[in-house]
Amino acid sequence: MSETRPTISRDQAVAPLFAGIDLGGTNTKVGLVDDQGHLLGYRSMPTKVELGPEAGARRMAETVREIADSVEVGMADVAQVGLATPGTMDIPAGRLLLPVNFPSWHDFPIRDRVSHHCGRAVTYENDANAAAYGEFWLGAGRHLPSLIMLTLGTGVGGGIIIGDLTIDGQHSHGGECGHIIIDSRYDARMCNCGQRGHLEAYCSATAVVRRTEEAIKAGRQGSLAQAVADGEELTALLIDKHADRDDALAWEIVLETARLLGIGIVTLAHTIDPAGVLLGGAMTFGRSESKVGRRFLERVREEVRSRALPVVGEKLQIDFAALGSDAGFYGAAGLARVEYHRTKTK
Amino acid sequence: MSETRPTISRDQAVAPLFAGIDLGGTNTKVGLVDDQGHLLGYRSMPTKVELGPEAGARRMAETVREIADSVEVGMADVAQVGLATPGTMDIPAGRLLLPVNFPSWHDFPIRDRVSHHCGRAVTYENDANAAAYGEFWLGAGRHLPSLIMLTLGTGVGGGIIIGDLTIDGQHSHGGECGHIIIDSRYDARMCNCGQRGHLEAYCSATAVVRRTEEAIKAGRQGSLAQAVADGEELTALLIDKHADRDDALAWEIVLETARLLGIGIVTLAHTIDPAGVLLGGAMTFGRSESKVGRRFLERVREEVRSRALPVVGEKLQIDFAALGSDAGFYGAAGLARVEYHRTKTK
Repeated sequence: MSETRPTISRDQAVAPLFAGIDLGGTNTKVGLVDDQGHLLGYRSMPTKVELGPEAGARRMAETVREIADSVEVGMADVAQVGLATPGTMDIPAGRLLLPVNFPSWHDFPIRDRVSHHCGRAVTYENDANAAAYGEFWLGAGRHLPSLIMLTLGTGVGGGIIIGDLTIDGQHSHGGECGHIIIDSRYDARMCNCGQRGHLEAYCSATAVVRRTEEAIKAGRQGSLAQAVADGEELTALLIDKHADRDDALAWEIVLETARLLGIGIVTLAHTIDPAGVLLGGAMTFGRSESKVGRRFLERVREEVRSRALPVVGEKLQIDFAALGSDAGFYGAAGLARVEYHRTKTK
Repeated sequence: MSETRPTISRDQAVAPLFAGIDLGGTNTKVGLVDDQGHLLGYRSMPTKVELGPEAGARRMAETVREIADSVEVGMADVAQVGLATPGTMDIPAGRLLLPVNFPSWHDFPIRDRVSHHCGRAVTYENDANAAAYGEFWLGAGRHLPSLIMLTLGTGVGGGIIIGDLTIDGQHSHGGECGHIIIDSRYDARMCNCGQRGHLEAYCSATAVVRRTEEAIKAGRQGSLAQAVADGEELTALLIDKHADRDDALAWEIVLETARLLGIGIVTLAHTIDPAGVLLGGAMTFGRSESKVGRRFLERVREEVRSRALPVVGEKLQIDFAALGSDAGFYGAAGLARVEYHRTKTK
């Protein structure tokens, strides 16, 4: 996703407007869109976690206002604001509970404080669910009536969208797709969460690097092993690069990751039976524009087709996500839009 | 569930009324309830699959009418009818596709034919989803805002309810919880569906019997093995009986089934994050009224608590279902009620 984003002018916009905020540990992205999801303005700002949550809420609200000013619309034209944050959280209460990487932001009523500072109603959502909604509304899922999105990064995030509904869960933990069990043995791989055998323990960037390290330690050779021996940092990107050069170990890791992901997708598809599954996040092996990305995706599809109930597997669309890290703010704005229109029609 | 069901009279009923039909391979259950789920009348009739689907639709409609007559209400008092059938099916189209055990009922517009014969709008649903909704509305889930129901019988059926929404799925295969993968190895147990490693391949009655047979063949002894050697049919009920007499093998099978079920529930709970999980079906080891049932349930809970994300696992309620095989017709009536009230308020 390029940093230049095509925008429309105030005169081209279809009212009402919605702002979307995607709070991240390092940067926070804020976008202003019209009722059809066209972007009017966008800012990325450093989150500055250390300033604390009240300053964070005020700065996010100010950024919404600044974007509105910069495109010459007033806050009165912004019907509602969407806010997506990492967990843990209480979505109905609008509270951050124990967000990882946000020391001192614990148990904070972030929804209402952002609302207070920007003077607009705020819709609150988990960031992975918001990203899934962004893809559903405007991205690779825009033609799909339901989808599951898996975001492969340090962990494996998940979001489930059915119609205009996000599966938030009873305790704001719906769609924790990274933590489904794909290996139930007691000695299965340890997940970042401290439990064993989860999808994330095999298919996150962390897990992929660990699996590669183990293979190299066990004596596997080739260009990837040599690069690591020469001091290059072992990352998913490095594995991708060496698969592209046809290093055998790199290919094995890429394809085994795809196979394991396929197993997880079968379980999710049998539970939800969605129209599609989208794969996003940094760790998607080059995406569709590279041979590694294409083969990775093809291997995921093979595993799903070979294991799924025919009715589910034959029609399930599996693709890469399209909006990159913009999916979160777009989705937050989209969920604000859904809530706004739903409330209005009541 | 006893065959005598307490009913209310016409004068006690809260209008409007709803009929629920649960089509089974052997028997079809039909009930008439009021707007609060109180039963006015009930019939169970032999399905007579061999008469074909048109006769089936007519007979189901006639039974609704007979019940209404018998409790002295007219069909005009029945606001809507709910119909639950086994799959495969196309829920939005109201069609049976390839229902197992229903030769000659293939690709039949059952919803509209039942509607034609009884002169009322018909709401169509999968039988496992309807059973889950029945428990949600009137049974063990009546205080839960969301739930997953697992029905352990010949197979393992599943239904997911969130608020008043059933997860039907894009291809009418939502909530196929028996077919989530709990063992991803290539030599994992074969499921009834022909794929390996599914929850159903370990926790259905069929699977439990097979696992026990294998243990006996491998030389395990005791009262259960002796009973089988003496010619008793090996069933889940027999295993239950011998666990109650403290046969070691029987206990192992019961508790290992609970452990494996717990693994599946963790995956489902991390995907949906429901308020509760209910276990129904014939194969629930004596249910809560017996020591085997209590220990079985406790072992399921232990496995879930030990493996789930704390936020999800600590609050998740796991219990036996309460309505037995009546859950299907109650749920069908309940879903008809939801659709009726939703349409009315639009």
